[in-house]
Amino acid sequence: MTTHDRPTRVHIIGSGLIGASAGMALRAKGFAVSLEDMSPTSAALARDLGAGDLPGPPDADASIDLVVVATPPDVTADVVVAAQRRFPVAVVTDVASVKRIIVDEVAERGGDLARFVGGHPMAGRERSGAISARADLFTGRTWVLTPTDETAPEALTLVRSAAEATGAAVVVLGAGEHDEAVAAVSHLPQIAATVVASRLEELSDTAVELAGQGVRDVTRIAASDAGLWTQILVGNAPAVRAVLDDVIADLQDLSGALAAIARDGSHDLGAPGARAVIAAQLVAGNAGHARIPGKHGQAPTAYGSVIVLVPDEPGQLGRLFNDVGDAGVNLEDLRLDHAHGRPFGLAEVFVLPSVLGHLVESLTERGWRLHV
Amino acid sequence: MTTHDRPTRVHIIGSGLIGASAGMALRAKGFAVSLEDMSPTSAALARDLGAGDLPGPPDADASIDLVVVATPPDVTADVVVAAQRRFPVAVVTDVASVKRIIVDEVAERGGDLARFVGGHPMAGRERSGAISARADLFTGRTWVLTPTDETAPEALTLVRSAAEATGAAVVVLGAGEHDEAVAAVSHLPQIAATVVASRLEELSDTAVELAGQGVRDVTRIAASDAGLWTQILVGNAPAVRAVLDDVIADLQDLSGALAAIARDGSHDLGAPGARAVIAAQLVAGNAGHARIPGKHGQAPTAYGSVIVLVPDEPGQLGRLFNDVGDAGVNLEDLRLDHAHGRPFGLAEVFVLPSVLGHLVESLTERGWRLHV
Repeated sequence: MTTHDRPTRVHIIGSGLIGASAGMALRAKGFAVSLEDMSPTSAALARDLGAGDLPGPPDADASIDLVVVATPPDVTADVVVAAQRRFPVAVVTDVASVKRIIVDEVAERGGDLARFVGGHPMAGRERSGAISARADLFTGRTWVLTPTDETAPEALTLVRSAAEATGAAVVVLGAGEHDEAVAAVSHLPQIAATVVASRLEELSDTAVELAGQGVRDVTRIAASDAGLWTQILVGNAPAVRAVLDDVIADLQDLSGALAAIARDGSHDLGAPGARAVIAAQLVAGNAGHARIPGKHGQAPTAYGSVIVLVPDEPGQLGRLFNDVGDAGVNLEDLRLDHAHGRPFGLAEVFVLPSVLGHLVESLTERGWRLHV
Repeated sequence: MTTHDRPTRVHIIGSGLIGASAGMALRAKGFAVSLEDMSPTSAALARDLGAGDLPGPPDADASIDLVVVATPPDVTADVVVAAQRRFPVAVVTDVASVKRIIVDEVAERGGDLARFVGGHPMAGRERSGAISARADLFTGRTWVLTPTDETAPEALTLVRSAAEATGAAVVVLGAGEHDEAVAAVSHLPQIAATVVASRLEELSDTAVELAGQGVRDVTRIAASDAGLWTQILVGNAPAVRAVLDDVIADLQDLSGALAAIARDGSHDLGAPGARAVIAAQLVAGNAGHARIPGKHGQAPTAYGSVIVLVPDEPGQLGRLFNDVGDAGVNLEDLRLDHAHGRPFGLAEVFVLPSVLGHLVESLTERGWRLHV
């Protein structure tokens, strides 16, 4: 279906952030893109922004190669099945952030699984709607595709080529494996951040002032949109519940160990089993953390780092980066720590170990106060 | 006791990272510092590094104003009480990261609570021992003091002046309030990061590749030292257990809601109560997160931000910071996102809203690709 001597024709249903961004990205790569949306205003806005043509194709238009369903998840399966009936030769893909339930619903509703490829572009913004769309939204992001045993190979090839044309890196997974993976790497972290942040509501102002970088990192995503996340957790309920119950079991073991210690006295030699429970969980956390890929999916590189004391005056952090650049050193990562009650911050600068000595020397010469 | 016409005399028991760093910092401010350690080698090293004089004072030396007990937490109370007997007019403070249990043990062992002020300098490094000590370890960090009703006011004044002399910002809290605060803002986040990271052990390599910035932030501290954290959690067992049980209750509510949704069908209109449970927890997380102080303990400033696409070549990130500096803009915060499978990263640059437009213009002129 990509062998026609004409551009690939893509029809996008749903012209919100994801649909309109996909339209812009595909048009930029020479695809012929048309649009539709339940809201004529939204569709017109997306068209005006360059996301695709209006009106959409007539029903039964056999020249449509691919339909991208970019609607809210709760209507996705219905729209997929309807699109397959309207465009009898087109391959259909979707962009919902959970995948198993969509496949099941498409099958239940009599959809054609050979012409359906589930998809999940892992990109988004804080803002929604076509007005926030951009052609490079997917650049450098992962786009998961979840074909089933019934998916036609050429259908997967077509969807893959379109996803890659947007600048995304395609990862192929089973629908169930996708849902379990995002439950663990996305949905559970959101829940953990949320319940840790909830505890801060009950603290005094003075107690909250003891918050350091650790709790800031752990709770950063607790600021996420509650309405959106309710939908996401509801949509992936079985997989989220499975991983959540594993976490609850771990925490109950920990709580039991802490209770034994509180009862037997923490500074006595008793409760060795309780200590072992705590230590084993911390070690498992070390091991799990070590599996997170570093830059570009490779194993994490061991960087060297130096902590620099940065006066809180306009331009000081900029001056630091100027000086790092002037030293000819490539900054690999950076962590800023805002000191409580002091007129400066601490910047931890990560570089390759081979250039750390040179950087320390160079920054010291330029008058920076360092903690090596 | 600070009205003598001579330097304040401080004796430090325990010459590890914290003890030796305190010695260096206090000597730099004109305090007369002596040292002791169970290990003569460690004490000699600390002396050679400039942390204080050897040998320590003779027993009953009435010229010692302040004793700082910087030993491991499990012997702290014993050492505090012994120090009060050896130096009958000295005020004694400690540096253990949990405080209620130390006060209780000092009282049980017949210590003089009028002359005891519990302390917790919230500073540390990945490395331990006098060899890692530095005079500015406490600069810009919080040093919590936990006097009791029985603490003499002049004892608190003396310990406060010494803590502030190290460059730390002193916060006064009750011992119990301190322990509850660190349970919530430090110990619970560590546990959450640990149990979320543990789940990654069971995932396939492909599934782990879906890890984005959220899970990276939530699990960063899961890489912490398991042995050290076992001691910390054991030492604060009652307070940690209390906050942990609150979290378990929240997670059980969530799990029940997810089970109801999985049973009733997530895309049906059923289970409205289940959705409300999930939404309410996410909203509580939003509210708790909003309580974390921003820079310098003030309310968080609303920064503007722009995402810059940074090619992964030596010097590119340095070049970006040079260009930000050249634009005359003060960088307030920065977040780096390492794209999977792509030869570049995304840098989110946070600045004051008033200069964002100028920065965008300036970076665009210099050829940077931006997501505004």
